[in-house]
Amino acid sequence: MTQPDTVTACLIIIGNEILSGRTQDANAAFLATALNEVGVRLREVRIIPDIEAAIIETVNAVRPRFDYVFTTGGIGPTHDDITAASIARAFGLDLVLDEEARGRLDAAYRARGLELNEARLRMARVPRGAVLIDNPISAAPGFQIGNVFVLAGVPSVARAMFASLRSRLAGASPLVSRTIGCRLSEGQIAQALSEIQDSAPAVEIGSYPSWTDQGPQLSLVLASSDRGALERAFAEVAAMVRTFGNEPVEL
Amino acid sequence: MTQPDTVTACLIIIGNEILSGRTQDANAAFLATALNEVGVRLREVRIIPDIEAAIIETVNAVRPRFDYVFTTGGIGPTHDDITAASIARAFGLDLVLDEEARGRLDAAYRARGLELNEARLRMARVPRGAVLIDNPISAAPGFQIGNVFVLAGVPSVARAMFASLRSRLAGASPLVSRTIGCRLSEGQIAQALSEIQDSAPAVEIGSYPSWTDQGPQLSLVLASSDRGALERAFAEVAAMVRTFGNEPVEL
Repeated sequence: MTQPDTVTACLIIIGNEILSGRTQDANAAFLATALNEVGVRLREVRIIPDIEAAIIETVNAVRPRFDYVFTTGGIGPTHDDITAASIARAFGLDLVLDEEARGRLDAAYRARGLELNEARLRMARVPRGAVLIDNPISAAPGFQIGNVFVLAGVPSVARAMFASLRSRLAGASPLVSRTIGCRLSEGQIAQALSEIQDSAPAVEIGSYPSWTDQGPQLSLVLASSDRGALERAFAEVAAMVRTFGNEPVEL
Repeated sequence: MTQPDTVTACLIIIGNEILSGRTQDANAAFLATALNEVGVRLREVRIIPDIEAAIIETVNAVRPRFDYVFTTGGIGPTHDDITAASIARAFGLDLVLDEEARGRLDAAYRARGLELNEARLRMARVPRGAVLIDNPISAAPGFQIGNVFVLAGVPSVARAMFASLRSRLAGASPLVSRTIGCRLSEGQIAQALSEIQDSAPAVEIGSYPSWTDQGPQLSLVLASSDRGALERAFAEVAAMVRTFGNEPVEL
């Protein structure tokens, strides 16, 4: 599934709250966009429950298959925060107290007049050999072990952690995309669009229909890491839309 | 991962538009809730690209492991709609023109004064032996093959298709949940909460922190298919919150 010039990532979202429908995930869309900006393509997302066996199995299934793996969720101080211990087991490593992390937590809680109790100290435990990921929002760090980056689930913290680690990622060319909107139905243009796709293998063309009170609406998304190929395909799709008597609009 | 009294499901979201960050998925949250209402628990979600090999591999990896598998996306008329053909290959079945589906499409397009052209006719192709899933919105049906239910990606259509198929699902007891909100931090109550969790194995207790201008905020979500166990654990968590001088609020 990986093209040689593509740097790929998989995101594992650890969270019963997403699988129950109670919480809408916000990290997948953010990471997809942020990774693309550094030339890494999010190729798969898995949302799994807070169950140790599921975490271990999923991490070990994906880490050999993608250049980078990100996890979100499960690194707080409560009993359902089992990500660090599960990742350590997935790698066959001990979970150890990281003195640097402990120091950061100690300073942060001290500044707020709070006690670094046993539960909070859990957030300083990482697999042996892990490299910390800074958390400028709430101190408790994420960590990197091998090609796996372990982030918090709270979206603001996940974003801050990603900003802290992005310089560690080696990406390929970022993908650029342009979108054409028109008032045609997919069935009308499918054949013509397919011919353009065949003639432009470096461009991914996606077709996304919706319906409005004014009739069908169609978004045609062209994406490529080759700007020239993208522009050529864009011109062809726009011309094709006009042959159906419709004026294309860039979205 | 499956408890004997739990009926499980996996959702496969097929869509480059989600993996690029361009579109926010809406089907996972809907299906999680709708499945729970019929006693089926969504245990995993995978978001994968519009690539045949990825679809085949994912479908075959999950269908023996869950009671039900749902897919969304990729069943329209354009070149990037490869779900039906990929599912047929995953099952080792031919992709055939379904006469019933063709009739429905023919009637729907005729009513709109449109032609059932070659591209639109693709939407009448299903793996041999598949059972159609009605689409009251835009006619083109989904289908069921084995324990795999293939739905459209457009959320309104996915919902309508789910309503059409839900009577086919045999669920266990629906999960009920209650949520307690309080103005405490996770680190304060982690130990006490863990003790309540240990004493209530039939209840899943999740802890979800956030921060506001007024300080920390915490949602404690209790879920169980055993209403009595849920109420007992709820009372214990509420009492525990009060011991920290905070008044619990039901959310």
